[in-house]
Order: sequence, then structure tokens, then C-alpha cells
Amino acid sequence: MYVILVYDVAVERVAKVLQVGRKYLTWVQNSVLEGELTPAQFARLKAELKRTADPSDAIRFYVLPNKNALQVEVLGTSRNEPSQII
Amino acid sequence: MYVILVYDVAVERVAKVLQVGRKYLTWVQNSVLEGELTPAQFARLKAELKRTADPSDAIRFYVLPNKNALQVEVLGTSRNEPSQII
Repeated sequence: MYVILVYDVAVERVAKVLQVGRKYLTWVQNSVLEGELTPAQFARLKAELKRTADPSDAIRFYVLPNKNALQVEVLGTSRNEPSQII
Repeated sequence: MYVILVYDVAVERVAKVLQVGRKYLTWVQNSVLEGELTPAQFARLKAELKRTADPSDAIRFYVLPNKNALQVEVLGTSRNEPSQII
């Protein structure tokens, strides 16, 4: 499955949420990570974030069966792209 | 088509980029908007953002044929959801 993670969390938890996200996904720009995950990895990511985040934080996942369904377009600068290596 | 817009722009252009984004899409959380667009609307959105943003800004679009391909999951708080009204 292909997962896009966007987070809108209080400043004191930003670094920790980013750290957890990076364990599973690739950072692409401020507050956005994405990548291919197995269902088990996705479950672990959510469990870790649940422990890290506060109920007042907004963490949003966009989940797709695979990346083929998705077209990505960038305006301006691409800060980073997920590796094409499988 | 279903479009998710995430932006990572310099603070002096945040308000303007948000204003343009809101003309076409629904704000869901900080720096994230989404919604159903026609190809013509998407083209206009990109043209307006191109005029508004700087080449150093990162504006990223995730484009899907329709929303059915997409599963959305929220951890913590949903700041807002796109209307279900068509």
C-alpha cells in the first residue's frame, strides 16, 4: 500500500512525530512524508504515532492500494522525492 | 479528478497561497487542502499558484482519477473534512 502522511501537530511534538514518520516513510517536504508500506508496517506506524501524538494533533493518512493510482505534480521546488529503488 | 494540495512556502506567502487554494479546494488542516476538480479547474489552480508562489516554495499535488481510489484515515483530531455534498 502507498501511504501519504501529513501532520499538523503542536510545535513541542513536531520533532518526535517527524522522527517516527521517518522510520517508515520518506520525508518529501515540511510535514509531509510518503512511501510504500506493508499493512503490518502501516499498523505499527499508526500505533507509534498514537503514542507520540496528542488527541488535539491532526495526523492525516491518505492510503492507496499502490503508487500507480497516484500522479504527483510539483510546482516550484521539490524538497525531496521518494526513492525509485524498490 | 481528486486533488490533494500540500504547500511548504515562505511565511510571507502562506496567506496568499491559502487564499488561492481555498478558491478551488477545501482546507482540511494546516497546509493541506483537497477536493474534486475538473481538469480545467486544476489547470487554473496551478496557473494562479504559479503566479503567487516563488520558485523556492514547494507546492505538491497528489492527483487521483477520483476519490474512490483513496482511503483517508485520521489520528487525533480532524480539523475539517471535505463536504460530502456533490
